[in-house]
Amino acid sequence: MKAAVLHKPYDVRFEECPDPRIEQPTDAIIRTSATCVCGSDLWPYRGANPINGPTTMGHEYCGVVEEVGSAVKSVRPGQFVIGGFAFSDNTCPNCKAGYQSGCMHGGFFNTAQAPMLRVPLADGTLMATSGKPRRDMIASLLTVSDVLSTGWFAADAANVQPGKTVVVVGDGAVGLLAVLSARQMGAERIIAMSRHKARQDLARIFGATDIVEERGEEGVARIREMTKGVGADCVCECVGTQESMNQAFGSTRRGRYMSYVGVPHGVTFDGFSVFFSHAHLHGGPAPVRRFMPELIELVESGGIDPGKVFDLTLPLDQVAEGYRAMDERRAIKTLLQP
Amino acid sequence: MKAAVLHKPYDVRFEECPDPRIEQPTDAIIRTSATCVCGSDLWPYRGANPINGPTTMGHEYCGVVEEVGSAVKSVRPGQFVIGGFAFSDNTCPNCKAGYQSGCMHGGFFNTAQAPMLRVPLADGTLMATSGKPRRDMIASLLTVSDVLSTGWFAADAANVQPGKTVVVVGDGAVGLLAVLSARQMGAERIIAMSRHKARQDLARIFGATDIVEERGEEGVARIREMTKGVGADCVCECVGTQESMNQAFGSTRRGRYMSYVGVPHGVTFDGFSVFFSHAHLHGGPAPVRRFMPELIELVESGGIDPGKVFDLTLPLDQVAEGYRAMDERRAIKTLLQP
Repeated sequence: MKAAVLHKPYDVRFEECPDPRIEQPTDAIIRTSATCVCGSDLWPYRGANPINGPTTMGHEYCGVVEEVGSAVKSVRPGQFVIGGFAFSDNTCPNCKAGYQSGCMHGGFFNTAQAPMLRVPLADGTLMATSGKPRRDMIASLLTVSDVLSTGWFAADAANVQPGKTVVVVGDGAVGLLAVLSARQMGAERIIAMSRHKARQDLARIFGATDIVEERGEEGVARIREMTKGVGADCVCECVGTQESMNQAFGSTRRGRYMSYVGVPHGVTFDGFSVFFSHAHLHGGPAPVRRFMPELIELVESGGIDPGKVFDLTLPLDQVAEGYRAMDERRAIKTLLQP
Repeated sequence: MKAAVLHKPYDVRFEECPDPRIEQPTDAIIRTSATCVCGSDLWPYRGANPINGPTTMGHEYCGVVEEVGSAVKSVRPGQFVIGGFAFSDNTCPNCKAGYQSGCMHGGFFNTAQAPMLRVPLADGTLMATSGKPRRDMIASLLTVSDVLSTGWFAADAANVQPGKTVVVVGDGAVGLLAVLSARQMGAERIIAMSRHKARQDLARIFGATDIVEERGEEGVARIREMTKGVGADCVCECVGTQESMNQAFGSTRRGRYMSYVGVPHGVTFDGFSVFFSHAHLHGGPAPVRRFMPELIELVESGGIDPGKVFDLTLPLDQVAEGYRAMDERRAIKTLLQP
């Protein structure tokens, strides 16, 4: 098969790779119906994360089970399935505590931008949809694999509840879906920080009540002004840079909640500032498996339409253009069709 | 009156200072029955926090109301009262949210190692005991002012609940009272990290089930070993150094709770480590006022005896020796009697 391979910064190729095959009895092979490019893929793409020679890419996927190993019980060939960006046994203590992305026997995918994919620990990783999904639902189901679940975790970890004021820092696909998630969880006021018209529009469609364009100290001052000087109840940091983290700290009310779901790059928290912020902090790689049952059902019922974050759809063989468009911010998120 | 004044590192003097007087209608003046030296007083004492010339010291106190301003309603002369190390109006949004140590109109005391003390915002800061306390109860009541409330906040912020496994990092008075607090909150297993015999003994009296002497990587490995490789449910960081913070991070189970109540000195959190720890983080200066009603009642009922942390009692005029004994770790905590 052919799949996406990053050779060096800004050099993604669609080239011949070995077909995946069952290696362990707990494996499944799936034929991907859709995959996509993640904001976190841009870090190695831009050279911010060094790579050791050519590396396959991608960790978001959904598709049809082709084959399962002898120990797999919960999914069978022919079923349409979704799995998270991390694989997990869903039985270890960390999984049982709801942190499957920290499974003691798990790991992360990096081979999903391909027409076929080997899924280790299939029983603990994959979930089947209730039936064969309609074609127009696949984009939304695909978001459960990472970007929706990550936005959902941002809102969940920031303790979003009915009536709360929420600030979302970051207008990438994760931030936009954190807005959608906060709306689903009943937030009263959702302030999206964005200075891009197309993203502002989508934020409003997803439920943002306010848009703040200011950044840095001005951004903090604006949030303080909008919250009677005290800051917001719930702040979702959806980028992973020092600037966005500072924005988030500065926006959080004493004793309230700040989450972080963007993989941090060069971020440090100053102990003194953390201490005197009095914030509750939580985040990390989203435990997709925990949220999958609820989110698949929400998508299947038509209650949410997170697939709207894909504003560019390309055939998988044009994956290189998919990266370029996101790198140049011409696209929010690229869906790839094998 | 004479009071404690820090002139330069290791130079505390008991010397003439102006008597406090009512400056605002919301002030109260109290005659201190007992005060003490805090672990955090040792930072400026050791020169780790620079001071701008001679500075009065002390923020833990209890005593009898001598005089109140015209606007004070909740306490009256003759009552025995306790207040926290921070003063607060107890009515602003931060106070109402239970974070009185972040009161928008408040501040911190530094004049309590004295026979008399001016308390701003007396209504929002002080609480009267149910009557004149017995002499042998004063030490325990004094701990409510800071050290017990801070240990209590450590356990509360680390979400200690019945049946949980708790690690307490730090065997100072705050750490020891975090042990006591965790026991009160029903923890099943309480692991105190300490390598000092006297402190280990007190930790056991307060409810520790296990003592760990190892530190650094060995300390983390030991906690992992004791918790089947997953780490503890609740970890209380009660020191404020990078070493203790690392110990705490390394001891916390995925998705569980770590608190920090020691004022951080030169501490930074690495974003990547925080992110992948999946820990819930919370802490800061303890909101003493929130916990005071419950803790005063617990002490008055004889349910707890936190005053045991004082292993040295001196007349206030020997305050300099009180600092020396704590600095040299000859004493866990020094009580001073005016």
